[in-house]
Amino acid sequence: MRILGIDCGTERTGYGVIDSDGRRHHIVACGVIRTSTRAPFETRLLAIARELREVIARHLPACGAIEEVFYSQNVKTALKLAHVRGVAMLVSAEAGLELGEYSPLEIKTSVVGYGRAEKQQVQLMVKNLLGLDAKQPEDASDALAVAICHATRTVDPRLAAL
Amino acid sequence: MRILGIDCGTERTGYGVIDSDGRRHHIVACGVIRTSTRAPFETRLLAIARELREVIARHLPACGAIEEVFYSQNVKTALKLAHVRGVAMLVSAEAGLELGEYSPLEIKTSVVGYGRAEKQQVQLMVKNLLGLDAKQPEDASDALAVAICHATRTVDPRLAAL
Repeated sequence: MRILGIDCGTERTGYGVIDSDGRRHHIVACGVIRTSTRAPFETRLLAIARELREVIARHLPACGAIEEVFYSQNVKTALKLAHVRGVAMLVSAEAGLELGEYSPLEIKTSVVGYGRAEKQQVQLMVKNLLGLDAKQPEDASDALAVAICHATRTVDPRLAAL
Repeated sequence: MRILGIDCGTERTGYGVIDSDGRRHHIVACGVIRTSTRAPFETRLLAIARELREVIARHLPACGAIEEVFYSQNVKTALKLAHVRGVAMLVSAEAGLELGEYSPLEIKTSVVGYGRAEKQQVQLMVKNLLGLDAKQPEDASDALAVAICHATRTVDPRLAAL
């Protein structure tokens, strides 16, 4: 199954597309959508929507996965992020993609077996699980991690307890 | 100038379109977009986007106005609302509408002259300012109030101090 993972951010939104049978994962594409901090917020939302639509049109994922919004640190930042997340959810729904939503803990547990793992550890395991030559940029790697999490939890139900 | 006001909500999103010279305001249309609480959240975002696009296509506003997001009461509710707001901003940007953003205090001050006015007072003044026969539903009325606020602050700068 082809899965699109999205890691939302106002400055950088990562995306990662994988093919997976729930156990073995292959990378199809990944990248980071950057928006100018000087552009009006709605222009940045527009750029994110446009690029996500292009990714979907090019790679035709069967479903999507996205991180749950959390607000442990800064409510203002979380509120901005939620705008981007709303746009990502809309674009996915427009393309008919069902979206899995996962907490950071679930995502980390899926890729490194430990919910409180460091970001670098996630980056390294994403590289290893996908057999990549090099680590990917953090936001792209996080998006791939969400996609892998969704794969392990939906494609093969036996792995859902991971 | 024709202005679209949007009052975002996950269950009910109000919209109001007015023509205004900054002093006199005429209603063009208003309504409430309702989404089913039983539908998945992304389906609700899709419905809101679709209906807002229809309103824009039908009435061709020149610009838009939206309430700032605030989180005085419940962060979880504010985060959900921010998703809807992201979608509303995206749809406006896609239509080329510049969006004014106003705090509840600014909106209330514009329509009733007092920033801490009750909701019913806003509803009554929206009815009066637009010369309507009856009060409009609260969400539609709030959307009209945002549009009026934008009109008084942009169309005639002499009223910006209101």
